[in-house]
Amino acid sequence: MRVVVLPFDDDGTVPLPPPGTHAVLLTPSHQFPTGGALLPARRTALVDWARAHDGLILEDDYDGEFRYDRQPVGALQGLDPERVVHLGTTSKSLATGLRLGWAVLPAALATGSLAPHGGWGGTTWGPGAMDQLTFAVFLRSGAYDRHVRAMRLRYRRRRDALVAAVTARAPGVGVSGIAAGLHAVLRLPPGTEPVVLRAAAWERLALTGLARFRHPDAVLPPADALVVGYATPADHAWPSALEALCRVLP
Amino acid sequence: MRVVVLPFDDDGTVPLPPPGTHAVLLTPSHQFPTGGALLPARRTALVDWARAHDGLILEDDYDGEFRYDRQPVGALQGLDPERVVHLGTTSKSLATGLRLGWAVLPAALATGSLAPHGGWGGTTWGPGAMDQLTFAVFLRSGAYDRHVRAMRLRYRRRRDALVAAVTARAPGVGVSGIAAGLHAVLRLPPGTEPVVLRAAAWERLALTGLARFRHPDAVLPPADALVVGYATPADHAWPSALEALCRVLP
Repeated sequence: MRVVVLPFDDDGTVPLPPPGTHAVLLTPSHQFPTGGALLPARRTALVDWARAHDGLILEDDYDGEFRYDRQPVGALQGLDPERVVHLGTTSKSLATGLRLGWAVLPAALATGSLAPHGGWGGTTWGPGAMDQLTFAVFLRSGAYDRHVRAMRLRYRRRRDALVAAVTARAPGVGVSGIAAGLHAVLRLPPGTEPVVLRAAAWERLALTGLARFRHPDAVLPPADALVVGYATPADHAWPSALEALCRVLP
Repeated sequence: MRVVVLPFDDDGTVPLPPPGTHAVLLTPSHQFPTGGALLPARRTALVDWARAHDGLILEDDYDGEFRYDRQPVGALQGLDPERVVHLGTTSKSLATGLRLGWAVLPAALATGSLAPHGGWGGTTWGPGAMDQLTFAVFLRSGAYDRHVRAMRLRYRRRRDALVAAVTARAPGVGVSGIAAGLHAVLRLPPGTEPVVLRAAAWERLALTGLARFRHPDAVLPPADALVVGYATPADHAWPSALEALCRVLP
């Protein structure tokens, strides 16, 4: 399989693949890592591409449960269920260690995906049956929905605290990608990303620079920024972590 | 990766691979599906091969917990821990659905196997953390050992009942591969395997013929036989399943 990179501009991913492409993988509800939602016109154009070229779209909805500000963003899969595979996970909503996820497949792909040698019942890898059954009970009881709603409020408060602190303490730093998910992008003055990352390491903060996620084929000029996950640490450690973050920002 | 098949004779696997082979995968304590243990002289010869050719041996010890008659068969890995990877699993001792297993690796391979992109902590597949942690508590408490001992007695009684019933009701059928594990091989008169399998399906017995496991490159003449797992069904259904099995045997 040959992998090509989709173009990316100031409005996010340009999801029109080059001729000869069979499938497109993207995170339309919350681009990773920059955090924007795919523009409505681009969503439509992508589905049109799939219909015209017999293409498949893989919609990685990795943190769609956590949307704070805007109206809910519908699943791309809803635009054409026979062209879009919707991929979900409990990695953000419950725990990465659970290793539970799901795929909502077009009917034509469902049978092959469940065949003995590629599916859960066969000899290849799948999540443990105990975790699957436990999650099914959790979901059916409504407790999963209540958990997601409670966590959404909690994460929103953390996000608000992060934005307020950065705005007050580091006015030269822009905050973006915050309408959804569990991470924000802090845009830094040009050339400062490496030194901020080194200072963060001294403060024992596990931050990632945006450069780490930059593909070698990317065409936009590099932008200095931090990708800051705010789902951790635990509540008792959160205020001091936020304070340490503000100390290292320029 | 090119896969070649090891020779197989009346004494089981002949574990001497052709020139150019880098690694050998086998089930030395209980050949699957025929059920014999690898002969001591062949165990030694295989380790000698690995030392002479810088080869790696993968010892799939899939049901080594359940040995009934003979002295325990030591792990091949014990003969040369730097040449043999020992692979274990809870699929037979607890439940296939747990998807838990382990590899005892030579030191030289351990680091690479735990690297971020190939190991449990990275972005690739591993068993769920909850199951791993639960199993660790179960193991450390001694409860796993007690469970295996209790099941060994239970499976041994089932095996004895199977052998007794087949010997009494179908004297033309030979029983082999029964010193360990959770399945027996019932050797049938030549040419009868397909008809016995069809009769078993009518009796709603899920049996597998030995032919199903035969590799296209195998050199021994075909042998008609059934591979009979006796770990299922549940106790209340076991006597009638055994009775149904005896009905379909020639």
